[in-house]
Amino acid sequence: MLYHAEVTIELKSGMLDPEGTTIKRALEHLGYQTKKVSTAKKYTIQLDSNSADIARQKVDEMCQKIIANPIIHNYTIELREA
Amino acid sequence: MLYHAEVTIELKSGMLDPEGTTIKRALEHLGYQTKKVSTAKKYTIQLDSNSADIARQKVDEMCQKIIANPIIHNYTIELREA
Repeated sequence: MLYHAEVTIELKSGMLDPEGTTIKRALEHLGYQTKKVSTAKKYTIQLDSNSADIARQKVDEMCQKIIANPIIHNYTIELREA
Repeated sequence: MLYHAEVTIELKSGMLDPEGTTIKRALEHLGYQTKKVSTAKKYTIQLDSNSADIARQKVDEMCQKIIANPIIHNYTIELREA
């Protein structure tokens, strides 16, 4: 079965987000007032697996080993059948 | 009223995604087989607005002017009241 896993990697609260701050400032220069701009990264991983549970576990391992940095990131995984 | 706009910026189909390709290869080196890995960027923008329609229109303008590159990106906006 083919699964699509959508992984969202966000900075933990309290971590600085210089990209978000820069975009907020650039938007102000263009006349757009915002309260806050924060950035995150999204990865869509397509993988074959016998079950949704196994697919989710594999993607979780991928996140811990290579995609996210658990010291500074929170991540969420949304899984659906393709 | 405070609104949260979640903007997702994806590469248009056909555009090369070297970051996704690199992660796919790195995952293979760790023993994880995937069909495809694609990357996207997510921005959460908090803004005050009198109505949801005005908020959405403003965020759409921000995307066109500074956040997305319409030549290579598709973007979606999800708006909700904070």
